Amino acid sequence: MRELLEAVADGSLSPTAAEAELRGYVTEEAGRFDATRDRRRGIPEGIFAEGKSASQVIALAETALETTGRALLTRVSDSQFNALEAHLDETVPEATIDRRSTTVRVTTSSSDSPSLDATVGIATGGTVDGPVADEAELVCVDAGATVDRVDDIGVAALSRTLDQLDRFREADVLIVVAGREGALPTVIAGLVDTPVIGVPVSSGYGHAGNGEAALAGMLQSCTVLSVVNIDAGFVAGAQATLIARAIDTARD
Amino acid sequence: MRELLEAVADGSLSPTAAEAELRGYVTEEAGRFDATRDRRRGIPEGIFAEGKSASQVIALAETALETTGRALLTRVSDSQFNALEAHLDETVPEATIDRRSTTVRVTTSSSDSPSLDATVGIATGGTVDGPVADEAELVCVDAGATVDRVDDIGVAALSRTLDQLDRFREADVLIVVAGREGALPTVIAGLVDTPVIGVPVSSGYGHAGNGEAALAGMLQSCTVLSVVNIDAGFVAGAQATLIARAIDTARD
Amino acid sequence: MRELLEAVADGSLSPTAAEAELRGYVTEEAGRFDATRDRRRGIPEGIFAEGKSASQVIALAETALETTGRALLTRVSDSQFNALEAHLDETVPEATIDRRSTTVRVTTSSSDSPSLDATVGIATGGTVDGPVADEAELVCVDAGATVDRVDDIGVAALSRTLDQLDRFREADVLIVVAGREGALPTVIAGLVDTPVIGVPVSSGYGHAGNGEAALAGMLQSCTVLSVVNIDAGFVAGAQATLIARAIDTARD
Amino acid sequence: MRELLEAVADGSLSPTAAEAELRGYVTEEAGRFDATRDRRRGIPEGIFAEGKSASQVIALAETALETTGRALLTRVSDSQFNALEAHLDETVPEATIDRRSTTVRVTTSSSDSPSLDATVGIATGGTVDGPVADEAELVCVDAGATVDRVDDIGVAALSRTLDQLDRFREADVLIVVAGREGALPTVIAGLVDTPVIGVPVSSGYGHAGNGEAALAGMLQSCTVLSVVNIDAGFVAGAQATLIARAIDTARD
Amino acid sequence: MRELLEAVADGSLSPTAAEAELRGYVTEEAGRFDATRDRRRGIPEGIFAEGKSASQVIALAETALETTGRALLTRVSDSQFNALEAHLDETVPEATIDRRSTTVRVTTSSSDSPSLDATVGIATGGTVDGPVADEAELVCVDAGATVDRVDDIGVAALSRTLDQLDRFREADVLIVVAGREGALPTVIAGLVDTPVIGVPVSSGYGHAGNGEAALAGMLQSCTVLSVVNIDAGFVAGAQATLIARAIDTARD
Amino acid sequence: MRELLEAVADGSLSPTAAEAELRGYVTEEAGRFDATRDRRRGIPEGIFAEGKSASQVIALAETALETTGRALLTRVSDSQFNALEAHLDETVPEATIDRRSTTVRVTTSSSDSPSLDATVGIATGGTVDGPVADEAELVCVDAGATVDRVDDIGVAALSRTLDQLDRFREADVLIVVAGREGALPTVIAGLVDTPVIGVPVSSGYGHAGNGEAALAGMLQSCTVLSVVNIDAGFVAGAQATLIARAIDTARD
Amino acid sequence: MRELLEAVADGSLSPTAAEAELRGYVTEEAGRFDATRDRRRGIPEGIFAEGKSASQVIALAETALETTGRALLTRVSDSQFNALEAHLDETVPEATIDRRSTTVRVTTSSSDSPSLDATVGIATGGTVDGPVADEAELVCVDAGATVDRVDDIGVAALSRTLDQLDRFREADVLIVVAGREGALPTVIAGLVDTPVIGVPVSSGYGHAGNGEAALAGMLQSCTVLSVVNIDAGFVAGAQATLIARAIDTARD
Amino acid sequence: MRELLEAVADGSLSPTAAEAELRGYVTEEAGRFDATRDRRRGIPEGIFAEGKSASQVIALAETALETTGRALLTRVSDSQFNALEAHLDETVPEATIDRRSTTVRVTTSSSDSPSLDATVGIATGGTVDGPVADEAELVCVDAGATVDRVDDIGVAALSRTLDQLDRFREADVLIVVAGREGALPTVIAGLVDTPVIGVPVSSGYGHAGNGEAALAGMLQSCTVLSVVNIDAGFVAGAQATLIARAIDTARD
Repeated sequence: MRELLEAVADGSLSPTAAEAELRGYVTEEAGRFDATRDRRRGIPEGIFAEGKSASQVIALAETALETTGRALLTRVSDSQFNALEAHLDETVPEATIDRRSTTVRVTTSSSDSPSLDATVGIATGGTVDGPVADEAELVCVDAGATVDRVDDIGVAALSRTLDQLDRFREADVLIVVAGREGALPTVIAGLVDTPVIGVPVSSGYGHAGNGEAALAGMLQSCTVLSVVNIDAGFVAGAQATLIARAIDTARD
Repeated sequence: MRELLEAVADGSLSPTAAEAELRGYVTEEAGRFDATRDRRRGIPEGIFAEGKSASQVIALAETALETTGRALLTRVSDSQFNALEAHLDETVPEATIDRRSTTVRVTTSSSDSPSLDATVGIATGGTVDGPVADEAELVCVDAGATVDRVDDIGVAALSRTLDQLDRFREADVLIVVAGREGALPTVIAGLVDTPVIGVPVSSGYGHAGNGEAALAGMLQSCTVLSVVNIDAGFVAGAQATLIARAIDTARD
Repeated sequence: MRELLEAVADGSLSPTAAEAELRGYVTEEAGRFDATRDRRRGIPEGIFAEGKSASQVIALAETALETTGRALLTRVSDSQFNALEAHLDETVPEATIDRRSTTVRVTTSSSDSPSLDATVGIATGGTVDGPVADEAELVCVDAGATVDRVDDIGVAALSRTLDQLDRFREADVLIVVAGREGALPTVIAGLVDTPVIGVPVSSGYGHAGNGEAALAGMLQSCTVLSVVNIDAGFVAGAQATLIARAIDTARD
Repeated sequence: MRELLEAVADGSLSPTAAEAELRGYVTEEAGRFDATRDRRRGIPEGIFAEGKSASQVIALAETALETTGRALLTRVSDSQFNALEAHLDETVPEATIDRRSTTVRVTTSSSDSPSLDATVGIATGGTVDGPVADEAELVCVDAGATVDRVDDIGVAALSRTLDQLDRFREADVLIVVAGREGALPTVIAGLVDTPVIGVPVSSGYGHAGNGEAALAGMLQSCTVLSVVNIDAGFVAGAQATLIARAIDTARD
Repeated sequence: MRELLEAVADGSLSPTAAEAELRGYVTEEAGRFDATRDRRRGIPEGIFAEGKSASQVIALAETALETTGRALLTRVSDSQFNALEAHLDETVPEATIDRRSTTVRVTTSSSDSPSLDATVGIATGGTVDGPVADEAELVCVDAGATVDRVDDIGVAALSRTLDQLDRFREADVLIVVAGREGALPTVIAGLVDTPVIGVPVSSGYGHAGNGEAALAGMLQSCTVLSVVNIDAGFVAGAQATLIARAIDTARD
Repeated sequence: MRELLEAVADGSLSPTAAEAELRGYVTEEAGRFDATRDRRRGIPEGIFAEGKSASQVIALAETALETTGRALLTRVSDSQFNALEAHLDETVPEATIDRRSTTVRVTTSSSDSPSLDATVGIATGGTVDGPVADEAELVCVDAGATVDRVDDIGVAALSRTLDQLDRFREADVLIVVAGREGALPTVIAGLVDTPVIGVPVSSGYGHAGNGEAALAGMLQSCTVLSVVNIDAGFVAGAQATLIARAIDTARD
Repeated sequence: MRELLEAVADGSLSPTAAEAELRGYVTEEAGRFDATRDRRRGIPEGIFAEGKSASQVIALAETALETTGRALLTRVSDSQFNALEAHLDETVPEATIDRRSTTVRVTTSSSDSPSLDATVGIATGGTVDGPVADEAELVCVDAGATVDRVDDIGVAALSRTLDQLDRFREADVLIVVAGREGALPTVIAGLVDTPVIGVPVSSGYGHAGNGEAALAGMLQSCTVLSVVNIDAGFVAGAQATLIARAIDTARD
Repeated sequence: MRELLEAVADGSLSPTAAEAELRGYVTEEAGRFDATRDRRRGIPEGIFAEGKSASQVIALAETALETTGRALLTRVSDSQFNALEAHLDETVPEATIDRRSTTVRVTTSSSDSPSLDATVGIATGGTVDGPVADEAELVCVDAGATVDRVDDIGVAALSRTLDQLDRFREADVLIVVAGREGALPTVIAGLVDTPVIGVPVSSGYGHAGNGEAALAGMLQSCTVLSVVNIDAGFVAGAQATLIARAIDTARD
């Protein structure tokens, strides 16, 4: 600890980084950032942008970059993104920004590029499921997993689904994203021996719309699935990452 | 009308049959029986036994037999059935009783045996869907339709489902009965051009059990289905019958 | 297949049309279009515009036109429609556009004009049910069925309803569209022997508003109905079309 | 008050009756009986038997008889009834017991027989609605209103309903009891200018069964209705009584 | 009928008024107006403005004025109101417009001014209940009833409520409007012998907000209430009017 | 610790008591008993009997007696109680058993009798709320608080409620138990400055029965309440105890 | 009373203040203000700004200031706040305005500054819970309690939570504010003997979002909690204040 | 295939086993048994006993034994178990029966004993969660995984939970079973980097009882979890098995 405080004193370590090291988290106006979550939990704290001001989002992203070398943000609006991008252009010009739908990942050249010897397959039922799958995908990419993605293969045209079976069998873990009645994970899970994580999507209107029918159907599935909440692409990606890492470790 | 009343007077027509002829329905202690529903609606009034006493069930069945030559009863318990059977053995010994699960059909030798030149396909997802499918089947049989039934082909083992496609394509109308997540009607309806009526079944436990997930999934189906209420085998059979009859008429 | 590929090579067949022929569907940025659904299922894939960008809508409509000679779009906003119309004016000037409320049908002079010898009756309870009925109607028209439509005959003024009974009896299949308590399909289905498809509409406020009371009432109906989801005019029209086609075939 | 206490002292007034007079209610083991509710509210406190022991039911009935000359009990089971009847046979042999389904009314020869110059019409949709209508009816009878009851006229056979219009128009207030989709009050209220109180019944199975669809439909009715809770025959009868009494008073 | 047609022919009767006379309703672009509802049902058809265009609202209001001499509109937005007012200024300058919150009543000098010898009491729990009470009030005023209104007497300060008991006892029928937990109708109905109609209001946030808690509480009330749907001021006013008219008739 | 182990070795301390002392809890077949909860949390672990076998209930009660000198059991059935009583008669003849409805408290002569200088007021709306109030009461008694209880004062007869105001004002904290619409805590909390804890009871039938309306109403209350789950008398009693103890401590 | 009226007559007392004194509340256009609630209930009437016009908010705030010397407003929008601030600058320049998120407290120099010898601890799970905690905090501050607040200690990083145990144990009563699954109050209440009031927050998306999961989890908590409605910071603060005041009184 | 049929002909292969080999499943009275599910999906078809007759259960168990050498049954009642045990004693005396709560596993001496080099940790919150955990455990055992189980460590006594962290960290995958508010999986998943599968249990009463609060809380968890339906121990065990097998394969 003495060492740490001396580093702060001579300016070679920021107070933020020092607090992260000492307490595990950093206390800020915009909230406490759990800087050691990745180390402890195997997945970093994602910054949930919805309902935060642009400056709160920027502050949390900066803390993440400073303490962990990268930042993962979900549910980022266009205006939040523009503000963040402009800010980073100025303050961290070497940062690389990867944006897919409303999910954003920032890395700095100095950050380690992790790599997992495992493949996460991601399938979607329709066009509208894209942003949720993007969220899951970027979490897996962030952890260094290989992602094999195939879109728009809903069961209304079953041959679209069956055409992809070989790819699904080769993945180590599958994320299947579907709205409306959410039958896609059930059909796929009945045919392969890969663990499948179902992600219901808030599409659909009328009775049990907004993803409730899809969630209910996945929970009631007559095959074996585990499920995350409606639109919870981040959680699905993180859970798949934990499984992929366990397999990667076993492969070593 | 004069003729009718004279027939009552000379005993060749019962008051019950006369009332049915004059008003369309018969008023009894146990309720009003809609004796002309079959003529007007194309399907007879079913006698819903649940919650009625055995004597009420018997009285309504007798009125149905007297005014229409047959009786169709649903949700009949074992004790109601035994009482009914004993009673009919004595009073209508020539009656034929067809019982499938909790559905019962009684015909007398004098009743017309209708016949429709049309086939209703009925499929179930699992063993537990049987009684609901039986209810639907007996309604179709009662109307004289050909029924082609195949059981226990849920999508958890998709090859069981796909093995039956040719039979489904040959039917004029399909009833697909499924509980849990209720994906079977969606998968079938995506592959054939027959009209499909989905029947959710009150199986499944936990969240959205009791058929709610199946109903929600069928309503949200990304294919084309129409749906009846959970466990409503009678309604599905009757709706299929109306379609079968329209086709039968067109075939003439 | 050789033939097909040669046609692509000499430019007489587009790659899109060739993919549709070979795989059944066309893979695009905006999604996979199921180009053979009409052939396989008896009804074409409808393009659900809600939540898609104007350019996605245009791309899918063009694929539909190119591979099937026509396009059917639902839930089209004004701005999506204007963009589509402007685009087609330029690229497919010979196209005919039929727009009713938020439903749009595009045909090209070269497309076959199908015709069914069957009539679909469509009834609505009130003014607010119009757009849902329009969606159902355009699907039936697209398939070549005769449509007999009567609006605003809700049961609050029962004589409005009863005045139309003869028209309902002459239809081969009925679609009845109603919001609030959704009693109209029940009342009609109690009086005619035509199959009735109920469509609940998301009108009504307060408890069980947004069509939930109407859906519940139709599912619980003491008459014989099958039902589609709230506001699902497309599904009702498609199911009616499948029945109409079966009758048309039987009539031949 | 002095007079009252002296009457207690000389045994011409029971302590129970005295407490009722002084505080308005009587405090007992089995609960407090609101002995002056009829005077204050226009309707007596009903004794809700469900969940009470037979001896609690008997105690409350006795208090009611002692302080108001009559007792009105709802949801009385067979065993509770038998115990009550046996007890009254011994202790109040002059009592008259009127039992309809699970509702019971006890009067003593000395109790005033109220009479209202007003008619309450009661209609039910089907056999299963009978006990709920009985509960409503006995409340009206207890208050001295004339009751005109007609059973089993659900809209599945609309002519059964329309046959009764004249009777409905002659009533001063209507109670319409219906389960399943609960369309009967809506159809009747659209045709007459009598105030209609809808009573949903807990019949029906599947989605929105147990009376929820009926309640929702009555609340969403496109005609004018007021509604009571599912199976709340007592409340409907009491509300109709209050209206009948206001009319009776106005007629004087 | 001959007379009617001759009146149309010589221009002394508009086709609209003639259709109203002959069929009971008028068929228009904007819907069918039930011109004889007031005569048949005792309350006029209200024009529900929400979701209609300004020109549809104007057209229906004109038909109402032409056939019944007055028009009652609910859920009228500011822009709909301004358009209607401007239109009427030009076309029916003698019209009188009464607007309370979102409810509007238009009468012409030539229309009969009905009068009922009965008083409807209206109470609200808080400021936010005002517009719903206004809707109820204008329906009663339109029918000629005397209205005695008292606002903002919710039970959080019970003395505010109890201060008004005498006024409540003098009314012939009470409408009690309340949101949040909706306890006000229960407390009032426990103290007076007037029939009480409870109107839940869509105030309140969190669990069972939007009026659901208030509706549930009124349905479960341990006193005697009948209830209308959440925010259904029109229905409450109309039901109170039907009761007031019955009393008025009895008073004659 | 050495001391403890020696006490175990020489038999003056049971292994159970030693484990409780060392780890805070005792591990048994029937579950882990949190023997130091009272010390840590201020309230003992209650033994929830529902769904446990009689022998599990007995085992847990014995562990509680052995480690804390007393046992508090909720939702005890008659047969569980009889088995427990018989067992204790034999094994702990000096135990005192206090049973109220389904709640049971066992103390041994050697257990400290705690005492709090604070009063908890408990009010119920009706007879059916008794067992839930009993559960709350016994928790308070167990902690040594004074309990002032008044039953059956629901707002349907408001004077019953208002008669008790002075007693409510003298209590340090109030528990108000009510089912149906649950208005009683709202009315009381509007009149006194004591903290009020509302306990909804699972009475009531029909829509929002089983306590849901009462819970919703208490959460939406326009006065200040905090609430516990439906029928959660134990939690209400425990929360009141924590408040009473804080006051008792302050009084010292 | 004579004195009061003379004070009004000579202008030394405003009519508003006089009405407050005489009736307990003040009747205004914008509603009735319960001027004596603080005296009667121990907490002042909060002015709920949502859904009110700026001028209504200002009028009520002025009445509060005039009759009680301070005003407490919740759910104040930016525009309402600006209007209020501008108005007070002019009319009550000596007023002090304390604004936290959407809660506002106004005091005048002449108002008594209450003080309680008790501490309310307030904890939040995340950034998004801040405004709800602010609402609770300002109510406690208004009553003169000491507030010890700690933010953003959700259980996803449990060490953040456990770091604060000592502060929680020193408080007299705890308010724990949490959204999503709402586990924070359960974890804290399992470790301390302070009474804990849980406040669910309307964060979270998908199934049981908007605070429903948090509310359900707090009601089902296996520890001892009492709960207020979702986002009901005012109620939690007021309940904590009532407890704090009881403790303060006991400490004297 | 010829070989197979010859084996049937010479009696060395049963028709049942042959059908399983040829079609993948076996068709019986009691349903179709998916005999190759284990091979295709990695987990065998479980026989869900609830709602089946004892003879159906026995028939399916025999088919499973005959075609796969073992049988896994869930939700087996006592009487079903006794019948099964008696039957197997006679017909397959060499069978080994492993029964835990309502889950039963039968193996024959000839069946392969699979083994996985991976550990599944299973934790429960309370006694009542035992049978659900048993179901999960037996599925894992059946697949040959090592199971490390720890019971009754709910967060009400957090030290019980934290005491087990090391064991949780050593497992390859964790199943956490909890009812009531279901906070246990969230707390554990926040502390370890093992993938966690949450299983809500249908304990808890009142609002959101029967496992709904636990399910909602796990779906809303601020940590990373995937979830199965309420009480779905089989699904959780099977999903953990699929992950364990992937790790086992990677370890090779």
